[in-house]
Amino acid sequence: MKPSLSQRVAAEFLGTAFLVTAVVGSGIMAERLSGGNVAVALLANTIATGAALVALILAFGAVSGAHFNPVVSFADALEHGLPYREAFAYATAQFTGGIFGTLIAHLMFRLSLISLSQHARSGPAQIFSEFVATFGLLCVIWGCARSRSNAAAFAVGSYIAAAYWITASTSFANPAVTIARSLSDTFAGIRPADVPYFILAQIAGAGAATILFRWLVPSLPAVARNVVARETERMR
Amino acid sequence: MKPSLSQRVAAEFLGTAFLVTAVVGSGIMAERLSGGNVAVALLANTIATGAALVALILAFGAVSGAHFNPVVSFADALEHGLPYREAFAYATAQFTGGIFGTLIAHLMFRLSLISLSQHARSGPAQIFSEFVATFGLLCVIWGCARSRSNAAAFAVGSYIAAAYWITASTSFANPAVTIARSLSDTFAGIRPADVPYFILAQIAGAGAATILFRWLVPSLPAVARNVVARETERMR
Amino acid sequence: MKPSLSQRVAAEFLGTAFLVTAVVGSGIMAERLSGGNVAVALLANTIATGAALVALILAFGAVSGAHFNPVVSFADALEHGLPYREAFAYATAQFTGGIFGTLIAHLMFRLSLISLSQHARSGPAQIFSEFVATFGLLCVIWGCARSRSNAAAFAVGSYIAAAYWITASTSFANPAVTIARSLSDTFAGIRPADVPYFILAQIAGAGAATILFRWLVPSLPAVARNVVARETERMR
Amino acid sequence: MKPSLSQRVAAEFLGTAFLVTAVVGSGIMAERLSGGNVAVALLANTIATGAALVALILAFGAVSGAHFNPVVSFADALEHGLPYREAFAYATAQFTGGIFGTLIAHLMFRLSLISLSQHARSGPAQIFSEFVATFGLLCVIWGCARSRSNAAAFAVGSYIAAAYWITASTSFANPAVTIARSLSDTFAGIRPADVPYFILAQIAGAGAATILFRWLVPSLPAVARNVVARETERMR
Repeated sequence: MKPSLSQRVAAEFLGTAFLVTAVVGSGIMAERLSGGNVAVALLANTIATGAALVALILAFGAVSGAHFNPVVSFADALEHGLPYREAFAYATAQFTGGIFGTLIAHLMFRLSLISLSQHARSGPAQIFSEFVATFGLLCVIWGCARSRSNAAAFAVGSYIAAAYWITASTSFANPAVTIARSLSDTFAGIRPADVPYFILAQIAGAGAATILFRWLVPSLPAVARNVVARETERMR
Repeated sequence: MKPSLSQRVAAEFLGTAFLVTAVVGSGIMAERLSGGNVAVALLANTIATGAALVALILAFGAVSGAHFNPVVSFADALEHGLPYREAFAYATAQFTGGIFGTLIAHLMFRLSLISLSQHARSGPAQIFSEFVATFGLLCVIWGCARSRSNAAAFAVGSYIAAAYWITASTSFANPAVTIARSLSDTFAGIRPADVPYFILAQIAGAGAATILFRWLVPSLPAVARNVVARETERMR
Repeated sequence: MKPSLSQRVAAEFLGTAFLVTAVVGSGIMAERLSGGNVAVALLANTIATGAALVALILAFGAVSGAHFNPVVSFADALEHGLPYREAFAYATAQFTGGIFGTLIAHLMFRLSLISLSQHARSGPAQIFSEFVATFGLLCVIWGCARSRSNAAAFAVGSYIAAAYWITASTSFANPAVTIARSLSDTFAGIRPADVPYFILAQIAGAGAATILFRWLVPSLPAVARNVVARETERMR
Repeated sequence: MKPSLSQRVAAEFLGTAFLVTAVVGSGIMAERLSGGNVAVALLANTIATGAALVALILAFGAVSGAHFNPVVSFADALEHGLPYREAFAYATAQFTGGIFGTLIAHLMFRLSLISLSQHARSGPAQIFSEFVATFGLLCVIWGCARSRSNAAAFAVGSYIAAAYWITASTSFANPAVTIARSLSDTFAGIRPADVPYFILAQIAGAGAATILFRWLVPSLPAVARNVVARETERMR
């Protein structure tokens, strides 16, 4: 039995919240413990984020598809995997869930609930990095969309762990996560003024990958490519 | 052929013992070698714990379901996956196994067999962290409970590795492990006085996630959700 | 439906480009952040490369077989898994894709587009290391060639992550990646003068492993061993 | 078609050789780069060894069962998974392969081919550690022996990575690897005088786990438990 929209939206809220808690919380913990060695701090942040993604996608994939990312939900809608009406519901859950995740992290580490980040991440190189990061993420997602196994969970977790180090922006690659991180003046933060450019680059990267895969794997749209949900449905 | 209760209880004893040996032992080794860099020590502790969980759940999942955690066994009983009588037997094995694991770690590192920890972990932020950590753990377990593959082993191992860095308490998320760690005045220890609050928060977090999943995935109870055992049974 | 040659060649171009971006980009990021600790820098470089390989092979395996490496494509041709004409097309895409990947990494990190590396990697020990590294890589690929699952992605990602530390040369094991890295005067670079010796050793290592597996697993050629593509085909 | 004994013995030789090259080689590289931080060096050694094991077991499992360890082969013989005559052939290949692996590592790092280690690893705590380490390893292997998937590769790789940090001896858990490491006066070495005690403890640990699993999972012997080979056979 396919989960109802409210069940799926709840899964997207919870999953995105926990993802942001993972990114922000492990950033705070890593910075506190690493004694100024930024490479060690980012390594801890990387492992926590990648491992959390694997766990969350395996856990919620069968409920909602485990998008946790508005550009993924709208790309799915564009390819007829999800009605637009549901993509809007998914995105709302992702944006609010992400902000909720920041609050939870701040509560756990005894920080004020919201603090605007002062971490500047600007300039063409940073913005180009977000384009590359999101283009790569969508390639990985479309590339795994037909796989029967849990491959997508490992592929996406591995991809984001790698992308933290590969791109100059440390790969936000997700508008909901970007906004949530702007509300945290900690290791993982981003200055609110830089957010719009990041999001535009993310949309462009996701769009480019989606158009590319229409040609690269033309059989995908015909089979209604709701990333993980379809494959995991037979697990019930 | 389903394993007998005594076989399953032995598996829970062994698995929980080895899990605690992993947490305590790698904490000692990491602190000794890291020359005061706590981030590097926690990174080693993280990798050892996460990897040990993957191995132990893959190894004992087919025998007992590889709970290694009283709140998991009682949550399973609550959802009719395990009779309460067996949940009590599981929990007894987990508590005694955990303490046995501390002894083994101390023996290997030439420490006195028992030493009460003086590591204070108190305050609302720590206790809230344990609620979040256990809530997340049960979400991951219920979310993977229908999966046919070995996904649960990778999901739980990844989750705990991530949660070490995400929560302010480093995610004990397990009453048997919490008690066992109170008997070790080493890197992984916790002051006995702080144990009751941790355990109450863990019970609350596990309960909240279990109630949530009754609504989120209502088909679960109907299929008797003994976490891994059912799926792996067909492997014989 | 089997992907067309142009679709497969595009997948090889994209995959090899992203692989080189991963190697070069994470090398730059790791060196910048690690404050002179080469072990920490190589650890970050290792995790990023291994994780990127897992993601890329899972994503593009079903399209092109995810070779990303000319010696793999020609070894496949030698064993009748791929027509020679197509192996040449694959290799062209891999060499140009690799160079494109270096450009992307340099753009993201605001470096000049091309810079000849001055990183000397010469002498018999280095060259012998490349022979061992590529011999091992091809053993892993041929060994996994019959597996039905996504095992090859995890095996190759794990192998390369390990080989970074096992061999004195940090395991280039790939002519396209070697040439691309000669154009980057950064952490991952190699002096152009040292490239021919590396490539010769890589060809010798790949050839030795391929000949060995003709005897070790004689059933392979008979089933046309296009590494991942065949197994993943049934996923559609 | 089941591989011939000579093919299987060659796979054991190759796999054990590469495993030892991984342990010794990554130890040398890690010590050279880590600037005296032993925790960082052991972390690199850990990741390289665990990842190499995953790759090697996935690659050679279908040929020989990927034992790479005399106590595993003899435990398998004890449980009628392998004739004793073949277990002796396996063990011979493992001992000679291990030594060959040390030579390869020394050649790559320009060290003299053989150098007796001066690294003392003695005392009851070290020997007890080897008992625990090998007991745990055999539990993991027997526990995964019925699994249909590639779980054993991930379980064993994860287990050894964890055990490096969990036990005071860093978990040799393998007589062939122990002897090979006594011939290398580097990071991973062990003084020849300490080898016999390590091997006795390893045999005792393996025996205890094997006897335990006769009771814990009595269905195992009846199905001829050649660890990975049986499951992977259907992959052909």
